[in-house]
Amino acid sequence: MEERSPVMPFERLLARRTRLMGANAIREILKVVSRPGMISLAGGIPSPESFPMGRIETLTRTVVEKYGAHALQYDPTEGFPPLRKALSSHLAGKGIRADPEQVLVTTGSQGVLDALGKVLIDPGDRVAVEAPTYLGALSAFNPYEPEYVCMETDDHGVLPASLDRVLSRGGVKFVYLVPTFQNPTGRTLPLERRTEIARILREHNALLVEDDPYGDLRYRGHAVPTLHSLAPGHVVYTGTLSKVFAPGLRVGFFTAPEPIDRWMVLVKQGVDLHTSTFSQALAAEYLAGGHLEAHLPEIIDLYRPRQEAMLEALDRWFPESFRWSRPEGGMFIWVEGPAGTDTLALYRRAVARKVAFVPGRFFFTAEGEGWETMRLNFTMTGEAEIRHAVRILSEVIRDAAAEGAAPSQ
Amino acid sequence: MEERSPVMPFERLLARRTRLMGANAIREILKVVSRPGMISLAGGIPSPESFPMGRIETLTRTVVEKYGAHALQYDPTEGFPPLRKALSSHLAGKGIRADPEQVLVTTGSQGVLDALGKVLIDPGDRVAVEAPTYLGALSAFNPYEPEYVCMETDDHGVLPASLDRVLSRGGVKFVYLVPTFQNPTGRTLPLERRTEIARILREHNALLVEDDPYGDLRYRGHAVPTLHSLAPGHVVYTGTLSKVFAPGLRVGFFTAPEPIDRWMVLVKQGVDLHTSTFSQALAAEYLAGGHLEAHLPEIIDLYRPRQEAMLEALDRWFPESFRWSRPEGGMFIWVEGPAGTDTLALYRRAVARKVAFVPGRFFFTAEGEGWETMRLNFTMTGEAEIRHAVRILSEVIRDAAAEGAAPSQ
Repeated sequence: MEERSPVMPFERLLARRTRLMGANAIREILKVVSRPGMISLAGGIPSPESFPMGRIETLTRTVVEKYGAHALQYDPTEGFPPLRKALSSHLAGKGIRADPEQVLVTTGSQGVLDALGKVLIDPGDRVAVEAPTYLGALSAFNPYEPEYVCMETDDHGVLPASLDRVLSRGGVKFVYLVPTFQNPTGRTLPLERRTEIARILREHNALLVEDDPYGDLRYRGHAVPTLHSLAPGHVVYTGTLSKVFAPGLRVGFFTAPEPIDRWMVLVKQGVDLHTSTFSQALAAEYLAGGHLEAHLPEIIDLYRPRQEAMLEALDRWFPESFRWSRPEGGMFIWVEGPAGTDTLALYRRAVARKVAFVPGRFFFTAEGEGWETMRLNFTMTGEAEIRHAVRILSEVIRDAAAEGAAPSQ
Repeated sequence: MEERSPVMPFERLLARRTRLMGANAIREILKVVSRPGMISLAGGIPSPESFPMGRIETLTRTVVEKYGAHALQYDPTEGFPPLRKALSSHLAGKGIRADPEQVLVTTGSQGVLDALGKVLIDPGDRVAVEAPTYLGALSAFNPYEPEYVCMETDDHGVLPASLDRVLSRGGVKFVYLVPTFQNPTGRTLPLERRTEIARILREHNALLVEDDPYGDLRYRGHAVPTLHSLAPGHVVYTGTLSKVFAPGLRVGFFTAPEPIDRWMVLVKQGVDLHTSTFSQALAAEYLAGGHLEAHLPEIIDLYRPRQEAMLEALDRWFPESFRWSRPEGGMFIWVEGPAGTDTLALYRRAVARKVAFVPGRFFFTAEGEGWETMRLNFTMTGEAEIRHAVRILSEVIRDAAAEGAAPSQ
């Protein structure tokens, strides 16, 4: 056997689509998080304290005893039948009528977004997104070479009139929204806008993707009906167990109008054959065994005081020229500074003082937008550290303003 | 909430690539398998009796105790670090030198094939494949719209001269091979051909994908060096734990030359973020805890007599005008009838007599090829049933010949 050959110049073999697939800037930012002593408000992941560790041994034992070799065998691409049944009931609680055979399981909701891109997007096709929007969706869509059309938003999410204008211009393959506790803003579309959006979708005979990973994480107020419940024939609804059970299991799911659903299954077959049967069996037992119902209040009791601590600290410490969202749930608070604020510059100062967050510009598809914004996560950090971190951030903002680097008042 | 709307005409939204993604014909054939009383030699999956059920409770308990919340949390796209370390040692046993950071984990080896297609294939790009070849690879590549160039094969696999001709014509992005116990033929490339192929790859500065799911399932003879060990700078090596642990966990892996490996990780991030952490933790413990070494002989002891029973029954019952492969391992035997045989017609007669197999034509990319061939699987069926099924098949062949439907002598 010879020595490992020198690296070959295989760049010449790369497909054209790789030009659109640069490294995710946030990924670089998140590397900072692991430095010792850093308080990170940058991540977008659930706290390990939210996982049902007290239940996992029972769940694994039940899976092995109840399903035996089935939990280790190949499984239909559509999903593990007991999980599809349990998800059908789960979705009914959200006003979503989907028989078990209309519920399809994917490897995280990322798997839904990739399959949608592959089924729907030709190079140059237009996809309508919010500004700002969830970056993971763009990572899934980008290899299929879409063009993004941005819809305007305000504190209550996307403006229906903006959606109407975008659809009236034509050529939009689908609309992508995170309507509840959005990432990055935490915003939730109120019922009136949802009703209006449902009407617009019907009028234009258009397709919308409702990505709903955070809907169950509600700390105050009342649930708003899903877009799917208001326009089922026009909406691909996608959810995940990542925020209410365990993200490492990679169990997402969707229900979609025909024939989109059938094509997505065909696509998934070529991508991973099916999602881990063992993960799906754990998820099935978690749902069908009543564990989600029992455990969800514990997750909410963990996150609610963290969010309250962050909001109180922002009220107390942040300059009056800054404003922020006050979401009733989810994982994020969105902060906007006055015009001229450069949160990437603030980020560098904050990291030097051992506090990390994500500058908001990374969530916009257009260059130059969102320079004055920042995304703060509150799920991964305890209340005392959150208060300390927000105070540090406020000092960083004032210091920068004092040096003329960014206005604060 | 309104009634579920009528199905919308969303066919108009489908991307162009869906034209190349028809339903898998074999999938339709496999539906027959589940009929009561059917003896199936059609499937391509491991026997559930091969799973380490006696070890799974220990493995799950170890994972929960040792990794705790880490086994349920998000994980790097590249893979669970303890698994990458264990796979690095596992690969060393195959002459493959790859540091843990050069080993990447995917959702089954299907995930490797999809990522390769996305990173490398532009519409119209040429991919060189064996005739016949593994269909799952075509399912992964097809959405990226390649053109296939077929290389000639004989009883010992692909002809190096054919590879040389195909590469000399130019324009081939990569070569795809299953060099050991191939699906569907069971053939293994001998060392001389591997050495010759390594030389040809270097000469043309070409890239080859070595898909090796069956290499560990050897019932006789000695292991042949992997192509990767002979031309590491030119080979993407991909393996899976599906055949030696549990397919339902969906744990595949690969090592690839730079920069292909980095691009594949970036692609995977958009497709599923990462492979199930819990599955990966089980796999890590299975490998690092010595369970593979201990359990593999049991799998071989299960399959070897099944394969012997099939070969003996073919020798005893099949017409002299038929020939078949005699693989030293794997899951399949490939049967070729005389010119004019129509194994799809034979398949229909066989199913009527409660025996199923896959007509070989489905493994060829060109229309009209392989009509006289069939793939027989021996892993899912006990010896007595295998003998019975082969005898039925031989009767079906003779009956068809007697009726002039297909020649048998």
